[in-house]
Amino acid sequence: MRVDLNSDLGESFGRYNLGLDEEVMNYITSANVATGWHAGDPLVMRKTVRLAKEKGVAVGAHPGYPDLLGFGRRYMKITYDEARNYILYQVGGALYAFVKAEGIELQHVKPHGALYNALVKEEKLARGGVIEGIADFDKNLIFVTLSGSRPAVIAEEMGVKVAHEVFADRAYNPDGTLVSRSKPGAVIEDKEEIAERVISMVKDGGVRAINGEWVELKVDTICLHGDNPKAVEIAAHIRRVLEEEGVKIVPMREVVL
Amino acid sequence: MRVDLNSDLGESFGRYNLGLDEEVMNYITSANVATGWHAGDPLVMRKTVRLAKEKGVAVGAHPGYPDLLGFGRRYMKITYDEARNYILYQVGGALYAFVKAEGIELQHVKPHGALYNALVKEEKLARGGVIEGIADFDKNLIFVTLSGSRPAVIAEEMGVKVAHEVFADRAYNPDGTLVSRSKPGAVIEDKEEIAERVISMVKDGGVRAINGEWVELKVDTICLHGDNPKAVEIAAHIRRVLEEEGVKIVPMREVVL
Amino acid sequence: MRVDLNSDLGESFGRYNLGLDEEVMNYITSANVATGWHAGDPLVMRKTVRLAKEKGVAVGAHPGYPDLLGFGRRYMKITYDEARNYILYQVGGALYAFVKAEGIELQHVKPHGALYNALVKEEKLARGGVIEGIADFDKNLIFVTLSGSRPAVIAEEMGVKVAHEVFADRAYNPDGTLVSRSKPGAVIEDKEEIAERVISMVKDGGVRAINGEWVELKVDTICLHGDNPKAVEIAAHIRRVLEEEGVKIVPMREVVL
Amino acid sequence: MRVDLNSDLGESFGRYNLGLDEEVMNYITSANVATGWHAGDPLVMRKTVRLAKEKGVAVGAHPGYPDLLGFGRRYMKITYDEARNYILYQVGGALYAFVKAEGIELQHVKPHGALYNALVKEEKLARGGVIEGIADFDKNLIFVTLSGSRPAVIAEEMGVKVAHEVFADRAYNPDGTLVSRSKPGAVIEDKEEIAERVISMVKDGGVRAINGEWVELKVDTICLHGDNPKAVEIAAHIRRVLEEEGVKIVPMREVVL
Repeated sequence: MRVDLNSDLGESFGRYNLGLDEEVMNYITSANVATGWHAGDPLVMRKTVRLAKEKGVAVGAHPGYPDLLGFGRRYMKITYDEARNYILYQVGGALYAFVKAEGIELQHVKPHGALYNALVKEEKLARGGVIEGIADFDKNLIFVTLSGSRPAVIAEEMGVKVAHEVFADRAYNPDGTLVSRSKPGAVIEDKEEIAERVISMVKDGGVRAINGEWVELKVDTICLHGDNPKAVEIAAHIRRVLEEEGVKIVPMREVVL
Repeated sequence: MRVDLNSDLGESFGRYNLGLDEEVMNYITSANVATGWHAGDPLVMRKTVRLAKEKGVAVGAHPGYPDLLGFGRRYMKITYDEARNYILYQVGGALYAFVKAEGIELQHVKPHGALYNALVKEEKLARGGVIEGIADFDKNLIFVTLSGSRPAVIAEEMGVKVAHEVFADRAYNPDGTLVSRSKPGAVIEDKEEIAERVISMVKDGGVRAINGEWVELKVDTICLHGDNPKAVEIAAHIRRVLEEEGVKIVPMREVVL
Repeated sequence: MRVDLNSDLGESFGRYNLGLDEEVMNYITSANVATGWHAGDPLVMRKTVRLAKEKGVAVGAHPGYPDLLGFGRRYMKITYDEARNYILYQVGGALYAFVKAEGIELQHVKPHGALYNALVKEEKLARGGVIEGIADFDKNLIFVTLSGSRPAVIAEEMGVKVAHEVFADRAYNPDGTLVSRSKPGAVIEDKEEIAERVISMVKDGGVRAINGEWVELKVDTICLHGDNPKAVEIAAHIRRVLEEEGVKIVPMREVVL
Repeated sequence: MRVDLNSDLGESFGRYNLGLDEEVMNYITSANVATGWHAGDPLVMRKTVRLAKEKGVAVGAHPGYPDLLGFGRRYMKITYDEARNYILYQVGGALYAFVKAEGIELQHVKPHGALYNALVKEEKLARGGVIEGIADFDKNLIFVTLSGSRPAVIAEEMGVKVAHEVFADRAYNPDGTLVSRSKPGAVIEDKEEIAERVISMVKDGGVRAINGEWVELKVDTICLHGDNPKAVEIAAHIRRVLEEEGVKIVPMREVVL
């Protein structure tokens, strides 16, 4: 049994610091590095890629909407042609330069925030936009998306490798989508409960939905957080518990390929 | 005798159109494509790279300061470390993605506007910043800079190939620098006079400075403009006259390498 | 009978020119000046306000989404609290400074592009967002919105004055909404047909919808365009025809108040 | 004896938090609120103005270069006409809207970072640019600048009121300019030493320069910091010591007018 642990990093910008990147980097195997549109800047990108290299963490691009003010968390109605070229710019692109400069490989692409969510609902945006953009640049990049979602199916049809992602601290609907953050119980805060859910996902291939039903989930990578000390503590705990259960923690390319 | 003709293209942004790219593309052999910071956006970059490919024009990156409002024409006091990573982001980087997606090669890097000028005065910015940034990404990229300038020397010392650039419509000081635009006679507007100067530069290896002295100039590439109909007419004229004189017009990689 | 003619102006940005502002300014009575987020910059704002002052055209703010790349034409999911403060910043705010510096009055606020459209569908965005933002700054500003729309009703309930706006060159649905640009027949291009529709709107208080039904329309102000020579010609024609029909062309404050 | 204590606040942006505004607001009498170009955004501006109102702290605008990436700390070569209209946009402008919406007064304008420094060296930028921009909007706004500097003289000549500002934690050259941060001893960190210097400035009208010479300083307002807990502690200490010495701490309008 093997799984990848990923986290969104490199989200500082200019004078603004965000995230305990150095700390959470100790517990993960894949880093999603912000590409300068919703967060991140060239110096932050360089530093984050270098840090990942030192810690042996695989690097992926984390592109988002052109909305620094909204941190990429607000839906924007862009066309699929815009999406395709925005992805190329940011991934192929902006982050690739830093990865190449540091002499390592680009492993994956995980869209950020509202763009991540919009893909699930807008097939054209996923197909002709983001996934085509990734394939335009490099067919060997892994596309990270919500486990079992429509974009995962589309990408596989298009010959792009997919990492099915689950969220350790989020409640699920019976259909495998995440319970909206605006609803009660959407975010799980108890460290032990989070760990139990992660074990269930990885070992039993699913988890209880918010209504008690069983949801099957394909689990290639688990999203952890590093934006505050408590999140880092949970990340460390999840890693420890998974290892105690005999799960091997490896970069997603070793899970997916 | 051979020389390259280059022009700054892809300077439109969103709803804003700038430049007669399709027309001037008929007369040049190398295109400097704006990389989205001082001008250009992902859709414009894609379209411009595609157009260059169709017309058989070689493609280079044209990175600039993070100043869309000032069109990259205002000096900004950035550190060399900032410059290095800004170059990586834009060149290595943003434009490379579109070149790769279209299945062609990236040929060169020509810094834009105030950044182009700042390099001549700030050695650290040139050495540890822009040139190091280019080398970080790919040692085979050609660095385009003012003919005979200090950055040209530095780049050659660092093992980065240089294209010495001259300006067809600009008066020169006796030391090989350009006469500042704010001075009378700085910009030459007469088509025939421009053509004569270009012939002198290419065939005689120099031109008369504004005070009548002779300035020797190494000429790998000549900068043409395409931002208005008159500029395009001049570009066409220069090409015609050079060809009549038996000068071969080729992409700068065939001049420099 | 009196009506106002308005146009979106001041949409240039830095090196990028857009719109035949000087020409269309001859035919209108109210100018909607872009406020620097989706278009416009401080120098353009100053110049446009000054031009309006010289020509005796009333000035309003034309705020939009923070999306220069998309020219404010893409829907963004912002909260009403964001909208309220974005409006304050841009209207109250950015444009007011230039109006005050030139010693004239700020007349109105007309949201731009996708924000204009979003108000019609999202009541909270209209009420607690844009209209509240306008009222926060100055209760005497006129709010320009789609004739007969929900935001018009809300604003009037809230004690904010409304200018009901119609579009000379757009087909209407029977419910008074505009036919989507993606549908055939949405945009009317014939100068005479446009003029006839405007006369019908102003003198008969309505127009034929795309399906032939009659739509009643309250007409305080008519939106004209100035982004190309044909648009300016149509603007001139509409003004002439209205005057021939005895309609007085006056700034919207003289229509609304 | 009376003096004002000011601090740069409202420097958060979107998802990025910066500064202990709520805490340092307890010790100051004037707040310099960032206006959204180098830092700050509409929601942050609203919140900061509201907080100042609650705490009875006077509000001023803190405009800067259009350089969020560089936090306004990098010199940009802008023209005086650009400066004038950038100031209008940000001051007159963006921040005024929030002040008006909250029903309070705008007291002053203090340029930020590299723009603050550039004024001292570029007379045209100060005169025709920033100071003219302030006067364009409202002649009663107080212009905050380096004590005894050239812009202070120019502003007074132009009939704009000036608050002479000193820095509690910075070493001075014998000519009254600040010792560059890149030099040893430029920043003073000891709480007691800072307090002694402040007392000397306010009570004795000057301080020892870095070479031991006495520098006379006009002191209307003292700049404090709030970007980390230690800075807030120093701010509290300075206030306490000044009060113990019988100095009255009042908004700058009560010192200057």
